[in-house]
Amino acid sequence: MALLVVGSVALDSVATPFDKVEDALGGSATYISLASSYFANPVYLVGTVGEDFPKKYIDILAKHEIDLEGLQIVPGKTFRWSGKYHYDLNVRDTLLTELNVFEKFDPVIPDKFRKAQFVCLGNIDPVLQIKVLDQMVDPQFVVCDTMNYWIEGRRNELIKLLKRVSVLIINDSEARLLASEPNLVKAAKMIREMGPKILIIKKGEHGALLFMENTVFSAPAYPMEMIFDPTGAGDTFAGGFIGYLHKTNDLNSENMKCAVIYGSTMASFCVEQFSTGGLEQLSYPRIKERFREFLKLSRFDEKD
Amino acid sequence: MALLVVGSVALDSVATPFDKVEDALGGSATYISLASSYFANPVYLVGTVGEDFPKKYIDILAKHEIDLEGLQIVPGKTFRWSGKYHYDLNVRDTLLTELNVFEKFDPVIPDKFRKAQFVCLGNIDPVLQIKVLDQMVDPQFVVCDTMNYWIEGRRNELIKLLKRVSVLIINDSEARLLASEPNLVKAAKMIREMGPKILIIKKGEHGALLFMENTVFSAPAYPMEMIFDPTGAGDTFAGGFIGYLHKTNDLNSENMKCAVIYGSTMASFCVEQFSTGGLEQLSYPRIKERFREFLKLSRFDEKD
Repeated sequence: MALLVVGSVALDSVATPFDKVEDALGGSATYISLASSYFANPVYLVGTVGEDFPKKYIDILAKHEIDLEGLQIVPGKTFRWSGKYHYDLNVRDTLLTELNVFEKFDPVIPDKFRKAQFVCLGNIDPVLQIKVLDQMVDPQFVVCDTMNYWIEGRRNELIKLLKRVSVLIINDSEARLLASEPNLVKAAKMIREMGPKILIIKKGEHGALLFMENTVFSAPAYPMEMIFDPTGAGDTFAGGFIGYLHKTNDLNSENMKCAVIYGSTMASFCVEQFSTGGLEQLSYPRIKERFREFLKLSRFDEKD
Repeated sequence: MALLVVGSVALDSVATPFDKVEDALGGSATYISLASSYFANPVYLVGTVGEDFPKKYIDILAKHEIDLEGLQIVPGKTFRWSGKYHYDLNVRDTLLTELNVFEKFDPVIPDKFRKAQFVCLGNIDPVLQIKVLDQMVDPQFVVCDTMNYWIEGRRNELIKLLKRVSVLIINDSEARLLASEPNLVKAAKMIREMGPKILIIKKGEHGALLFMENTVFSAPAYPMEMIFDPTGAGDTFAGGFIGYLHKTNDLNSENMKCAVIYGSTMASFCVEQFSTGGLEQLSYPRIKERFREFLKLSRFDEKD
């Protein structure tokens, strides 16, 4: 078993009311890989960076035993994103998006990677996400992220892709947009009819909803007193989610609920520090400890 | 033991994308009393209506064995509120607020009511809420609701009131406003320092948070496919919450979590029909059945 992660690898410049960083390690494939590396091995990363990509960031990924054979280092500059969060951290402005080498990204999956059974498609053009799946030998479990930009601009391609996806992970506004339906329960039903048997709707500081078979599961959010940098929280969620499923190789609904909580757990670590700082020094016992805090947070029992 | 409910009794005209009603039974004291009547007995209601208040509405309250000795029927017109909900039911416009007899409401607590140990102060002027408490002999457990209008316009009085309150129930934007702090966990800490040892933050379709002692509890929202009329959901939550606590007379944190779920349960029934329709024909087994659906919705277990 192996886990393939495809997405962006970026240099992020982020300002929050508390501090700022420049050219920090970022990108969906980065966050997904780092989060999943605590559960899954091997993790195969496919992405592209420019020649300016700092060696120290390669080292961070390598230290987490992420296989970088699929990381193309090409002439030019690395994808750069810059954003500013407001006092209320739910609101952010994108200041700059420089695609650079990412504009011509053509995900070529190395031979060794093509047999991976678990695939996590980070938020990139659905055309490229399809291209990835076309190269896989027998992908058993495909998790896919997307965003408003593709829902609006690449709808047909996205609809095609969704038929080949096991789990779609999107946020509430994306779900409403994709289904053209404001009620989330109805929207979920409509989206699951488009292909993915399992749908996860992320609600930021309000937790997440899992829809599968006849199950609806509401995962709480971890009440955080200090959120330093929300960047990458959604990707980290996906990484923790698929990583845990890869580790346990159990796709029934009870275990899927745990995977959602492990995704939330990893996301809670992610936002505690800038960039990937919150994901670099974790341990499985510490992750498990926070998982149990989620358990405590939402557990109640019927009184007889 | 008895439960005193003080608040508004109103005639509501409500339009949603699905239907509309005119001069329907409404008001905070109405919703709180009806919801709590499934758990607590006696429920004492204190409020005021005009001579135009329909007898059929009196009958609804009386049928639920709500003691109406404290319902003042005075010359003039009943408080009227009119609102319109948008396609996304989280957004509503208030079209009209006619205070009428409610403008001169002076809550006089009948002698028999003054010994009630449980008190639920619906969302009215904090000056009046204080006046209610001043008339009580030995209120043991006081639940209080308020809103942005009072937080901004009656801050000093509200701060005074909060020192005498056991539980404050407000929504997330009200919590942020009251504490002048966007982070809910920090805001909760600040508000609890103002007096109420227990704070419940309602998050509408995202559930509710309970803060007490060293406990944080995240209650899920019931995923509703059809919300007919959100009017009164918050009041109904408060009614179910305090009603269940009155019934069980157990104020420890584990039981408080169940009370939050019973509050959410009652609110989920409330929004399924216009006005008080969803609260009129319930039974305790049906309430308990939905409570168990909340349990299923949020329950997960650690895999060994």
